[in-house]
Amino acid sequence: MVNQALDWAIPAKSFPQSNLLHEAMHYSLMAGGKRVRPALCLAACKLAGGLESWALPAALATEMIHTMSLIHDDLPFMDNDDLRRGRLACHKAFDEPTALLAGDAMLALAFETASNLSSYPADVSPDRIARVVGELARCSGAEGVAVGQLVDLKSTGLSEPVPLDKLEYIHLHKTAALLEAAVVTGAIIGGGSDEQIDWLRGYARSIGLLFQVVDDILDLTKSSEELGKTAGKDLASDKTTYPKLIGLDKSREFAEELLGQAKEQLNGFDSESAAPLVYLANYIAYRQK
Amino acid sequence: MVNQALDWAIPAKSFPQSNLLHEAMHYSLMAGGKRVRPALCLAACKLAGGLESWALPAALATEMIHTMSLIHDDLPFMDNDDLRRGRLACHKAFDEPTALLAGDAMLALAFETASNLSSYPADVSPDRIARVVGELARCSGAEGVAVGQLVDLKSTGLSEPVPLDKLEYIHLHKTAALLEAAVVTGAIIGGGSDEQIDWLRGYARSIGLLFQVVDDILDLTKSSEELGKTAGKDLASDKTTYPKLIGLDKSREFAEELLGQAKEQLNGFDSESAAPLVYLANYIAYRQK
Repeated sequence: MVNQALDWAIPAKSFPQSNLLHEAMHYSLMAGGKRVRPALCLAACKLAGGLESWALPAALATEMIHTMSLIHDDLPFMDNDDLRRGRLACHKAFDEPTALLAGDAMLALAFETASNLSSYPADVSPDRIARVVGELARCSGAEGVAVGQLVDLKSTGLSEPVPLDKLEYIHLHKTAALLEAAVVTGAIIGGGSDEQIDWLRGYARSIGLLFQVVDDILDLTKSSEELGKTAGKDLASDKTTYPKLIGLDKSREFAEELLGQAKEQLNGFDSESAAPLVYLANYIAYRQK
Repeated sequence: MVNQALDWAIPAKSFPQSNLLHEAMHYSLMAGGKRVRPALCLAACKLAGGLESWALPAALATEMIHTMSLIHDDLPFMDNDDLRRGRLACHKAFDEPTALLAGDAMLALAFETASNLSSYPADVSPDRIARVVGELARCSGAEGVAVGQLVDLKSTGLSEPVPLDKLEYIHLHKTAALLEAAVVTGAIIGGGSDEQIDWLRGYARSIGLLFQVVDDILDLTKSSEELGKTAGKDLASDKTTYPKLIGLDKSREFAEELLGQAKEQLNGFDSESAAPLVYLANYIAYRQK
């Protein structure tokens, strides 16, 4: 459902020369992401008392924001990645100006999609929609993804390892903020209480950090064959990881702790409805690649 | 009022390392723009029956979107401008990653600001606010500024001049779309009718093109001294302008025609309330630099 809707969401070309922007946006948005953020958003909407489908516009918006951050992050003067999900990065498949502007247009499209009153049922009041836009905006900018990316970039290539509080700041902003926006916007649309929204914020922060700790552990303990990507990259590079900072055993303990915290935040919900979010937390914790 | 509010709108730094993003956003947003878009937005709100101050959040958002487009447009692989408003461009005063992310964060901040329910009076209903977000999003992305910038970039350095319909497409998207969003969001907030909003759309499209035609004429007919910037740049470069395409006399006629069209769109309004928008159209048409 999400893939179909994303495909439809990109505005049609308005002039022959606007094909290029249209194609670049489509290329990156339909590059086969796992759609974790939309899934979180829809599940949180149901958990908060709504129908999954109510949250579709916000769910699409979270994936657009995610895609935009990847397009800009891959640019040569940023992380300089030529490949993304096994295909050429946007600036390689197209060029740098097109990638920059496709990212900009994708961020705008996220807000256009999330604010479109006519794509929500009457159960979803306009003030909820305005709050959803605010959440999405906050997680994207100077208090979310953008500042996380900048602090991350400025922490690479230093002679000293990144201290733990800074490492956490990076992951909370670069990764967890958008996961948080996904569950919170879903819950707002579903009519969740302030208390429920707070629980979901806590859940998202925990799985955001959990994702990163597990990533660091896998890079250190698995072979490239097992991971399906180059293993041991973190050790070879100067990237600060949890195992480097606190050791492998303590990192595993921390992962267990975060998984426990994530599940604890779901205790207040009906356990059947919370099952998808429990499943996702387990998946993040116990994945082998 | 706008300058003060813009200064306050940038989120405080949340971590020592986030200073940089904060400073870059502040640097570009407070670089002394003329605040034409906020002025249009506030005036349109009053014209549509509201108080000017109601539209302040949307007015700030239009200036943020404008600033973001300038930051990204100045980047080396884009227009490659080292100077902006007599100061170093953002990527020169800081660096390229910081400028890219300051632009991203600025776009997000525009939507955060415009969607903030608590910054509007009770007279402004949440459904108006959601519509305002939609207008701002549409004018920024694949149907607005971003596509205008891309088609403009891809039209530079070609051996043949840009045809008239493409030149108009560029100006309508790169320049007029945001002017249109400024007046339309103001009018939505002020409670304007659909008919009034349509008039204002027409007004904005006319002054958007008018601005560009007059710019082209001034570049050709004034000295660098008179303009306060290098004159004759368009002729020296391969940039397509109205005088190059249709000649100087026809360009002047076209400017008069656009000015007339802009004013005509204001006929349906009370003439005293419409005076600021008439003044602005005259200013754009008759400016000498």
